[in-house]
Amino acid sequence: MPRITAVTVEDVRFPTSSTRDGSDAMNKDGDYSAAYVVLHTDGTDTNGEPLAGYGLTFTIGRGNDIVAAAARQQASLLVGRDVATSAADMGEVYRDVTSDSQLRWLGPEKGVVHLSLSAVMNAMWDLAARFEGKPLWQLLADMTPEELVDIADLRYLSDALTRDEALNILRAREASKQHRIAELDRRGYPVYTTSAGWLGYSDDKLRRLCQEAVDAGYGHVKLKVGENLDDDLRRCAIAREVIGPDRKLMIDANQVWDVGQAIEWVKALSQFDPLWIEEPTSPDDIAGHAAVRRAVAPIGVASGEHCHNRVMFKQFFQAEALDFCQLDTGRLASLNEIVAVLLLAAKFGVPVCPHAGGVGLCEMVQHVSIFDYVAVSGDLTNRVTEFVDHLHEHFTDPCIVSDRGVGTGYVSPRRPGYSTRMRDASIRRYRYPDGHYWSRAELVAARRSGS
Amino acid sequence: MPRITAVTVEDVRFPTSSTRDGSDAMNKDGDYSAAYVVLHTDGTDTNGEPLAGYGLTFTIGRGNDIVAAAARQQASLLVGRDVATSAADMGEVYRDVTSDSQLRWLGPEKGVVHLSLSAVMNAMWDLAARFEGKPLWQLLADMTPEELVDIADLRYLSDALTRDEALNILRAREASKQHRIAELDRRGYPVYTTSAGWLGYSDDKLRRLCQEAVDAGYGHVKLKVGENLDDDLRRCAIAREVIGPDRKLMIDANQVWDVGQAIEWVKALSQFDPLWIEEPTSPDDIAGHAAVRRAVAPIGVASGEHCHNRVMFKQFFQAEALDFCQLDTGRLASLNEIVAVLLLAAKFGVPVCPHAGGVGLCEMVQHVSIFDYVAVSGDLTNRVTEFVDHLHEHFTDPCIVSDRGVGTGYVSPRRPGYSTRMRDASIRRYRYPDGHYWSRAELVAARRSGS
Repeated sequence: MPRITAVTVEDVRFPTSSTRDGSDAMNKDGDYSAAYVVLHTDGTDTNGEPLAGYGLTFTIGRGNDIVAAAARQQASLLVGRDVATSAADMGEVYRDVTSDSQLRWLGPEKGVVHLSLSAVMNAMWDLAARFEGKPLWQLLADMTPEELVDIADLRYLSDALTRDEALNILRAREASKQHRIAELDRRGYPVYTTSAGWLGYSDDKLRRLCQEAVDAGYGHVKLKVGENLDDDLRRCAIAREVIGPDRKLMIDANQVWDVGQAIEWVKALSQFDPLWIEEPTSPDDIAGHAAVRRAVAPIGVASGEHCHNRVMFKQFFQAEALDFCQLDTGRLASLNEIVAVLLLAAKFGVPVCPHAGGVGLCEMVQHVSIFDYVAVSGDLTNRVTEFVDHLHEHFTDPCIVSDRGVGTGYVSPRRPGYSTRMRDASIRRYRYPDGHYWSRAELVAARRSGS
Repeated sequence: MPRITAVTVEDVRFPTSSTRDGSDAMNKDGDYSAAYVVLHTDGTDTNGEPLAGYGLTFTIGRGNDIVAAAARQQASLLVGRDVATSAADMGEVYRDVTSDSQLRWLGPEKGVVHLSLSAVMNAMWDLAARFEGKPLWQLLADMTPEELVDIADLRYLSDALTRDEALNILRAREASKQHRIAELDRRGYPVYTTSAGWLGYSDDKLRRLCQEAVDAGYGHVKLKVGENLDDDLRRCAIAREVIGPDRKLMIDANQVWDVGQAIEWVKALSQFDPLWIEEPTSPDDIAGHAAVRRAVAPIGVASGEHCHNRVMFKQFFQAEALDFCQLDTGRLASLNEIVAVLLLAAKFGVPVCPHAGGVGLCEMVQHVSIFDYVAVSGDLTNRVTEFVDHLHEHFTDPCIVSDRGVGTGYVSPRRPGYSTRMRDASIRRYRYPDGHYWSRAELVAARRSGS
């Protein structure tokens, strides 16, 4: 029986700041990065290839080494584990990795140690799915309600969701799973694109990219806002003009406003009929989001990419602060915590529209959204998952979107795992600071400064 | 004019797990540790000694290296700064150190990068106070209301506290500051002790330590609870018997319960008349704390040592979830954030009783509590600051508590700085992993295992 024999963690950084891809009002020059975990085993997968688990969390550059260091400490707890036993009880694996009270102090359940835990458990879930020879969404969809509730971290949630309520939600979807799997095979899981609207893009580029999004079959386009109101008015007007009155426009402030300022600014942009305002203020401000939501309705409030754990989501739902839950697969502690949040969202009737983009997030969220529809929410109403068309070339099983006549959607992955294995050549080139790209870039910078 | 010329960051760990000092229901074997930052300058202090700033944050062992690595990255932004200019505009220094959006992504404003920011800015405040030749509480108390509001981080708070409201709170205390400073010189700032009640102590040790606390003039004693109800009933009975009906008993669950369980357990212990239940559930669960508070009144709810930033405290106050605010000087981003929380607490009428113990926390909180009384709250009602009598021997200016006939209190520090300079010999001995203690401990362990 295969065992986990070793762990490697890589600090991989892509120089996206050079093109201002990903620029917004808070984050002007991110280098999209991954703290990338590989769990090596002494076994082979269902194709006879060496069996390993590949997982990551996403950061935007500096500090990625800090997350990698934390991931090394946490992942070391997995070395020696039997893969079959682990895959059969992922709740126990999760409790084991999170049981170190000394590391817990550094959060608890937030910040660097939670990002790194996400990377480690993402690799573990990838390993479990590869071991079983299934794409991760299917591994989850094949579990019984009891098995799913056992892997879900329900700690601190019982005042909002009991174990029995969770079981009842899942049981109500059991009989019709195959129907929904087949439906997604026909239409794909609905997506929207953010590629058009980064803050650093010129008006001409914005106009061209909005048109390309329309031409590619997208029904939604998202714009970054919040740096300058006049700019936002002009950019929203361009976007609305290009996409027409029927497609959806979303706006995203990336946390730049105080509560009162958010309300004023969003009201000034309401003439462009946005579907939602995303991250209007501090991601920790549950009461603030609720206040914004009450003030700007019928414009929805979306948040979650920086919501650091299930206890925060519980309160966002209890406070009726969110119209759209944008959980993040690199910030929550992998499926153990994500399944808990999907169950909470289902109970409170909040659609889950995961955050993606970055590095590898699209590869992951497709599994989460497909599983959510098949086994938890059973509903596509108001659901649309983020898709950003960059950096997919670095993955061995990149996500695929396609327009089959009902709008663009994620095509359900067929290959085993969580789709998060990076190409060896990409790691060699972009590993920081010793990869070919960065050592060359430093050389060029050193030459320019005359040293 | 002196400049900051270099930064050193040390990972210092004390082997407290060997005695179970500090053991509680969540944290059974902490090694009390400090990520310790020194900002070196090319100047001299008011005594002609080399001028430097010394600051730290507290962790409980593993992962202290991760915090130290983050502190190194953040503190490097301070190298080259002029000390006088920095001391005159600590708000600008804070904005500078927190302006790196790539590092911000790893929180934001929480977890490892916020703990490390605390250590860095604590060192910077210590440097500013040493440069001015004043203890930190006095440096702050001597500032005008305008200066204090300028150093306070009020971002995301304006829906609860405007700049004008903050100014008005401070102005109302201006005329009577000297009166309160003199009062504290007479009586000290009231403290309570947790030294008696760690969960790992035997009943006999608990009884003896409670008696010692009474003999030493303490009016409050705190016990750890939450592992086993029968044990808690027996231990609370012992403590109440020793301290009598008039002294205050506090209980601390260190986050072990869900909300419903917290309510049941605390009601079972209500016969011992606790003043407060501390950390009944997840430190992120504002709504949960509010629910516990409503259910267990008149027993108060205390929390804050893991409350990660001012936005969370704002909501705890808005939700009327706390009777006692236990902010932590190693978790909030130093005085820039602490002053904001003190102002919020004053507006909402919540007494601030800072968390201490650990490593160096008592040294810091005395400055915070004294400043709070002198310049912000102007009130000692229901105020009592934590004091734990261990590890003070490692500091050059350890805090002093004394009973001057009105109960034990912190004696206002007179020497310049934030009292957080560690002794060189302690650093050499306990630096991890190469200090004398740890290299010897590893040697002993290796010999025991026969290698």
